[in-house]
Amino acid sequence: MDADSYTRTDLTPEQSAEHDRVLGELTQRTRDLMDAQLRTEVDAAEVETISAALAGLTGRLLAKATNDPLGIEVGTDGRVRNAGNTVVGLRNPIAPPLHVERSPDGKAWASFHLNALFEGPPGLVHGGVSALILDQLLGESAAAGGAPGMTGRLTLSYRRPTPLGELSAEAWIENIDGIKTTVKGHIKDAEGNPTVEAEGLFILPRWAREAMAKARPERFE
Amino acid sequence: MDADSYTRTDLTPEQSAEHDRVLGELTQRTRDLMDAQLRTEVDAAEVETISAALAGLTGRLLAKATNDPLGIEVGTDGRVRNAGNTVVGLRNPIAPPLHVERSPDGKAWASFHLNALFEGPPGLVHGGVSALILDQLLGESAAAGGAPGMTGRLTLSYRRPTPLGELSAEAWIENIDGIKTTVKGHIKDAEGNPTVEAEGLFILPRWAREAMAKARPERFE
Repeated sequence: MDADSYTRTDLTPEQSAEHDRVLGELTQRTRDLMDAQLRTEVDAAEVETISAALAGLTGRLLAKATNDPLGIEVGTDGRVRNAGNTVVGLRNPIAPPLHVERSPDGKAWASFHLNALFEGPPGLVHGGVSALILDQLLGESAAAGGAPGMTGRLTLSYRRPTPLGELSAEAWIENIDGIKTTVKGHIKDAEGNPTVEAEGLFILPRWAREAMAKARPERFE
Repeated sequence: MDADSYTRTDLTPEQSAEHDRVLGELTQRTRDLMDAQLRTEVDAAEVETISAALAGLTGRLLAKATNDPLGIEVGTDGRVRNAGNTVVGLRNPIAPPLHVERSPDGKAWASFHLNALFEGPPGLVHGGVSALILDQLLGESAAAGGAPGMTGRLTLSYRRPTPLGELSAEAWIENIDGIKTTVKGHIKDAEGNPTVEAEGLFILPRWAREAMAKARPERFE
């Protein structure tokens, strides 16, 4: 949680793309496995065989591995890469992932699918998962509008149940006041009805301002 | 999302325990794999071999599988089993999992570890992950106090950064007013300092009251 948390990568864009392709494929295969192991009804002996095989594959992956979280990488093109992020991370199998689109006026939006891994009440999206997604989307809205920050306060109003399946979400900036940005947004069901509304206050702490300036001086100096 | 979403199981407690042991082990091996595939630095050829092996194991798990989310099961002992839940589910690899302790006066608490899969800002827990965990814990507090419900409103105040690693959380009932229950809680870092505070309003909708009464008539009739 200091200036070294934002690291620079020296990979060329082509090398980055190949790296993303191979590791993104691994993460997608992991997502598929997570879903399958939740829904499986194969017999106990087969489950135990598969558990042992997974332990073997984990050992192979850890033959060479970092002990650190991925953090946030800033590419030679100035693009921020947060591959480990829980909601949008290319390499994070928890991430649905959200592919967030953004516009310079601070709008952010995404369409996504939530499967049984995101269940709370029967057949419905976990209320906390809606909060997780909206926190990320509102933060991206603030950043898209030139006012990035960490969540200071987040209020969620649950208007109706959010069914598992195809969903969308959008967020927009309500107000910018110095280092404080107020953002609103909602999740919508397949019929376009808002199910969960959110209002967030995002604040850019000093350590983050310093860290980002160090990693990307051309923008912050 | 109807009365059939709460299903009864006819497994004996001993059969349930063995089922949980075998499938819980599969899910834990999946969690280990998720962490390893995030941190791995093995070469691209090895990653591609492992991706192919995972696809094979997924196929074996899907040889017999349900297409439905797990929902919530009520055992012959009246115990509610939500193995698919995103935060506490024994069979959900996204779940850290939280092992929530509860008291009849509506307190709920848990100690847990969040690894790099739960990262937002570099080295820190994603703000939305804190929301996800607190939504679950506050809901369990309401249920423990005899006033279960779905989230109506949730407000999160981020007081200081939450580092990845060892954490704890607690929640308690502030007020019960008919089908509306107000609950407060927070996450604490390893030093015991509150990092994120939450206040939630939980409401039990009619369909859930009817569904739970159908699945567990001895309690609700």
